[in-house]
Amino acid sequence: MSNEQIPKVQLAAVSDDASGFTIKEIPVVQPDQLEPGRALVKILYSGVCHTDLHVIKEDWPAKPERPCIAGHEGSGIIVAINDPTSKLKIGDRVGVKWIAHSCNQCDYCLAGNEPLCAEAKCSGINAQGSFQQYCPAYTSQLTIIPDNLDMAEAAPILCAGVTVYKALKRSGARAGQWVAIPGAGGGLGSVAIQYAKYMGLSSIAIDSGAEKKALTAKLGASAWVDFKEHPGDAIIAAVKAATPDGLGPHAAVIASPKPEAYLTAMEYIRPFGTVVAVGLPPAGAYVKADVFFTVLHNKTLTSSYVGNRLDCNEALAIAAAGHVKTPIKVVPFKALDSVYEEMAKGTIIGRAVLDLFA
Amino acid sequence: MSNEQIPKVQLAAVSDDASGFTIKEIPVVQPDQLEPGRALVKILYSGVCHTDLHVIKEDWPAKPERPCIAGHEGSGIIVAINDPTSKLKIGDRVGVKWIAHSCNQCDYCLAGNEPLCAEAKCSGINAQGSFQQYCPAYTSQLTIIPDNLDMAEAAPILCAGVTVYKALKRSGARAGQWVAIPGAGGGLGSVAIQYAKYMGLSSIAIDSGAEKKALTAKLGASAWVDFKEHPGDAIIAAVKAATPDGLGPHAAVIASPKPEAYLTAMEYIRPFGTVVAVGLPPAGAYVKADVFFTVLHNKTLTSSYVGNRLDCNEALAIAAAGHVKTPIKVVPFKALDSVYEEMAKGTIIGRAVLDLFA
Amino acid sequence: MSNEQIPKVQLAAVSDDASGFTIKEIPVVQPDQLEPGRALVKILYSGVCHTDLHVIKEDWPAKPERPCIAGHEGSGIIVAINDPTSKLKIGDRVGVKWIAHSCNQCDYCLAGNEPLCAEAKCSGINAQGSFQQYCPAYTSQLTIIPDNLDMAEAAPILCAGVTVYKALKRSGARAGQWVAIPGAGGGLGSVAIQYAKYMGLSSIAIDSGAEKKALTAKLGASAWVDFKEHPGDAIIAAVKAATPDGLGPHAAVIASPKPEAYLTAMEYIRPFGTVVAVGLPPAGAYVKADVFFTVLHNKTLTSSYVGNRLDCNEALAIAAAGHVKTPIKVVPFKALDSVYEEMAKGTIIGRAVLDLFA
Amino acid sequence: MSNEQIPKVQLAAVSDDASGFTIKEIPVVQPDQLEPGRALVKILYSGVCHTDLHVIKEDWPAKPERPCIAGHEGSGIIVAINDPTSKLKIGDRVGVKWIAHSCNQCDYCLAGNEPLCAEAKCSGINAQGSFQQYCPAYTSQLTIIPDNLDMAEAAPILCAGVTVYKALKRSGARAGQWVAIPGAGGGLGSVAIQYAKYMGLSSIAIDSGAEKKALTAKLGASAWVDFKEHPGDAIIAAVKAATPDGLGPHAAVIASPKPEAYLTAMEYIRPFGTVVAVGLPPAGAYVKADVFFTVLHNKTLTSSYVGNRLDCNEALAIAAAGHVKTPIKVVPFKALDSVYEEMAKGTIIGRAVLDLFA
Repeated sequence: MSNEQIPKVQLAAVSDDASGFTIKEIPVVQPDQLEPGRALVKILYSGVCHTDLHVIKEDWPAKPERPCIAGHEGSGIIVAINDPTSKLKIGDRVGVKWIAHSCNQCDYCLAGNEPLCAEAKCSGINAQGSFQQYCPAYTSQLTIIPDNLDMAEAAPILCAGVTVYKALKRSGARAGQWVAIPGAGGGLGSVAIQYAKYMGLSSIAIDSGAEKKALTAKLGASAWVDFKEHPGDAIIAAVKAATPDGLGPHAAVIASPKPEAYLTAMEYIRPFGTVVAVGLPPAGAYVKADVFFTVLHNKTLTSSYVGNRLDCNEALAIAAAGHVKTPIKVVPFKALDSVYEEMAKGTIIGRAVLDLFA
Repeated sequence: MSNEQIPKVQLAAVSDDASGFTIKEIPVVQPDQLEPGRALVKILYSGVCHTDLHVIKEDWPAKPERPCIAGHEGSGIIVAINDPTSKLKIGDRVGVKWIAHSCNQCDYCLAGNEPLCAEAKCSGINAQGSFQQYCPAYTSQLTIIPDNLDMAEAAPILCAGVTVYKALKRSGARAGQWVAIPGAGGGLGSVAIQYAKYMGLSSIAIDSGAEKKALTAKLGASAWVDFKEHPGDAIIAAVKAATPDGLGPHAAVIASPKPEAYLTAMEYIRPFGTVVAVGLPPAGAYVKADVFFTVLHNKTLTSSYVGNRLDCNEALAIAAAGHVKTPIKVVPFKALDSVYEEMAKGTIIGRAVLDLFA
Repeated sequence: MSNEQIPKVQLAAVSDDASGFTIKEIPVVQPDQLEPGRALVKILYSGVCHTDLHVIKEDWPAKPERPCIAGHEGSGIIVAINDPTSKLKIGDRVGVKWIAHSCNQCDYCLAGNEPLCAEAKCSGINAQGSFQQYCPAYTSQLTIIPDNLDMAEAAPILCAGVTVYKALKRSGARAGQWVAIPGAGGGLGSVAIQYAKYMGLSSIAIDSGAEKKALTAKLGASAWVDFKEHPGDAIIAAVKAATPDGLGPHAAVIASPKPEAYLTAMEYIRPFGTVVAVGLPPAGAYVKADVFFTVLHNKTLTSSYVGNRLDCNEALAIAAAGHVKTPIKVVPFKALDSVYEEMAKGTIIGRAVLDLFA
Repeated sequence: MSNEQIPKVQLAAVSDDASGFTIKEIPVVQPDQLEPGRALVKILYSGVCHTDLHVIKEDWPAKPERPCIAGHEGSGIIVAINDPTSKLKIGDRVGVKWIAHSCNQCDYCLAGNEPLCAEAKCSGINAQGSFQQYCPAYTSQLTIIPDNLDMAEAAPILCAGVTVYKALKRSGARAGQWVAIPGAGGGLGSVAIQYAKYMGLSSIAIDSGAEKKALTAKLGASAWVDFKEHPGDAIIAAVKAATPDGLGPHAAVIASPKPEAYLTAMEYIRPFGTVVAVGLPPAGAYVKADVFFTVLHNKTLTSSYVGNRLDCNEALAIAAAGHVKTPIKVVPFKALDSVYEEMAKGTIIGRAVLDLFA
């Protein structure tokens, strides 16, 4: 792709303050303006994640640098690059993720814990994300998208997919065991069910409503628990009952951002079980674990914060091989606002993906 | 040891209700009265653990069957046995532990999670413990004590030792890394420091007072933090500062039964760190973990509930090789009441061990 | 089942020397003759494994005690028991395995390495196996067969199934990775393919002939390599080419007893790959690994020797859930000789299972 | 350090063919000539390893590009750098290792298996090593040397240290277990003993002669076996007898380059034990493992090929904390030839380290 094809201006969803964002024209960083270690990525598709909304609204302790451009499930093509030590090149199909940059030299990075790098930058917080047509991305965290994976379907794998895939790995659950997935019908959960099935895990989909029940069954869930039918602590018995021996699942991957989802999981998992925190509720939500029973039943609470570059490659490869298919709905870039509205109402099924050029 | 040496009556610390116990004469179960799968163990020494007090006082959800005989760090000699399928025999030096029986046939037992066996019995709760001179013990959980380990010193390894040894294993910390130990000067902590050092871990002793500071330094702690000098959240910065890079320890093994010890540990461990719950506070104590930061910093809360038979063999072997020495004070059986009083006051240094025949 | 139903005599395949065996009438051990720690198991079905033949013919260093009764894939019903400490009871559906007894008290047993127990007994070597209608089995290694699993189909899981399941676990291969299975069309291999698929592994079936090719494809193999079409070292390139990136599989599970299968596997696995030895060739077969390339490519050779009691429970549970189905052919007990003949000729597809009462 | 301090010429040990090398003057790559992703490192010290000799003499399949400059235990200072994306800077104390470059973007690199990177370059083979005063090194694999570690002592940690440290990690041996170390008195072995002790492992030093016996005892070995006193297979019984229970060590780390060391290790380790290949014998050396006993005793053969960047940081940190001290003998650069001669004779005790400017 030659330089003349790179326009001078582009559309971007720019947020100046916590009230929201505006889709408007802004300049494109030109190839000769790229800082070292950067590539210019023409974004084709970008998944829309809860996190983007939380970032813009400053729901979390981590506040964005303004003006901020969010978006962290971007699939696109490198159109320019300024990094002679990188193997990446113009024309490569790549993904822009939540972790936008890591030093790849500190002990956290060397241990594959790049999201914990003290110098890590996040899309929308202190790096530009994929809600723009031409993103000046750090090469340090760009991920190659396999040739045989559709670019729109690849987008949600870059965050939702890798996050739940890593969460399932961290759960320690092995083929033949059971895992509960609160939020099973949402963007994270609908993908988690599929990775779980591929890994030989039986999943208990926890969510509400006939439509989500049907979706999760179709995606491969082994059991269904409607949390509205089992309010409060009643869900504990219901989830346990969904496993063949009644002891409860070996693990729970919390794909729901609702604080309530965290309150019961430590109780319905079986002894020696593991709860993996994934979905980020608003600031101030707590996991409360009774020390006596945590010790007596030898339970573990752990977490998955996205995943590293290798996890992402693996999650993409499994999708490319056809084992996981993100239930996406492609919408034009300008529909971003209405996607957020639906997201706030909880009426979205699966994942909305923006077509940046539609 | 022939049968005529087994007396008809013995001294035992019998508790009829939550108010306490009385040391009195009760019958000895005679060899021909032993149920299948049982051995009669002449208890020589028995360590005194916080847990015994909690059990008797009904501080915990698990209530004892009355009359109860507590004690779960008992070292003694088999004087009779009714189990033709066991390799144990009269004359064997064995330990009576917190887990008094497990089925050794269920999946938990087969996975080395015997403490989680649905049929597990605990000394003092639903099995007789080692606060008596002749204990009719289940062969299923008797542990062989190595020949070259002193029987009085072996006693506290059977609970305090194996529990912290297993906790250190579960922390995932590797040689060269740092572990914080709240309650470092107590019965659990003083042993934890030594196992940590033997495993190549540097430990931060957290406790209070000059005497405990001196003890922990002598036992091999690499750093000291007096929690009274850093009240409330101030301890977070103090513990982090004790590590060379200021990021905080890789793990924390909570050897203190104080609820406060649980509130700060999730915050002072470094990202990707692990908190291992060990010390059991009174019922109702909670670990509170902020979901946002738990996920963002990829932290883990797990627990060690004693340890299995293999952990116990390993913990004893390390002690027998001279790498760990429990700081014990041997007192006569009849001093049990005063030991409890000192324990309640928190004035005990190291571990009190009863001589059952003194 | 009351005692009167237990006959005084039974049919058994008795081997007096290395020349073979005779199916003849021998006494049944009566309930009041059972040694402590034994159960009398009425054998309904028994799979026929290569190992039985090797044992009888003294092909291996471990020689059988004569007269020997081989057979180690026996599914049956407990009709009498002499073990008050066991949870097993008359009427239980159980499996008689290769490991007939282990002490369950030594460190190997406590670590789940029961096959390495110094006191382990093996069916056909120093314990009676399942080629008889009423087997006096040790309770220490009897395995409960799930209610919803057919007894004839359960039989081969007890050795072939658990062995390859454990081998796949020991290979370290994770969902999304590739594993080569030499001997894919045989008794071990045909089950290995199914467990691999259930665990999310893609398998390369290595064997020969159109019938085996069709079988392995039907069972879920992702690729096929006919070793006769790629003689000698040519198979190395063929196996590598079967993986999408051409680097070779992440692991190889050697389900073939042919010495040649061991010679090339260390070369066709990718760097950091693992070869798991499973199939036992005649004594004297060697794995030869070039030190230079083993180190340079960081490869591992390990082994699976059956599996422990938990592995067996897991392997059975996965089969009971319908994820693995052993391709069996049920034949009458008296056909044992002809099964061995076919086995020697290599013409058996899948697993022959004896009906002990047909 | 300003540019004027960088000379135009330097001394380097240049090898034009397999006959050897010459120390002569060659040009220094000037800062403005540095390729992207390179730093110019002023080498202060360089350890001398068997491998250098093998490379120059073409003993191995991997042949060097000529003229070659070997050396891969180099400690020095960055005096110029051409890599704006690296955190490294002029003045940093760094190490030049065997792995001179890795792409840090492929799946092997992302998994911490950088030595297996298809684009890896090795010092002396296809990259310049540390037997020169100014080495134009790739930034991708330069390792920071901790401030409190002596530069001469750091040198051997960069290969010998990290290799045995990684080997001990890969052995799976845990605190309290035993590891045999053939070649214990040499450059690799003398460091292995110390890391083993720090990790809580008891080591059996295998080597020959009173001087090496004394050295290994001083470094912390728990037992000594002189292989000359137990020729051939006799060493198997001797090594087993050195463990308290006579079953043999849990692991063996082969620090000797002698082919014989590989022939017996699979036999003297205990069941479930692991042999880790480390020392590289001349091409054509084989590990021969009897399939029957490998399976029956569930043994593993694996390998350590140096270690990754994180392993190296860990190995250096443990040395910097004073837990490991390489027994070095500092000699002038021009003595390189005589070091090789002594090495060929096997008369070197510990590690020779060149002072590049003496």
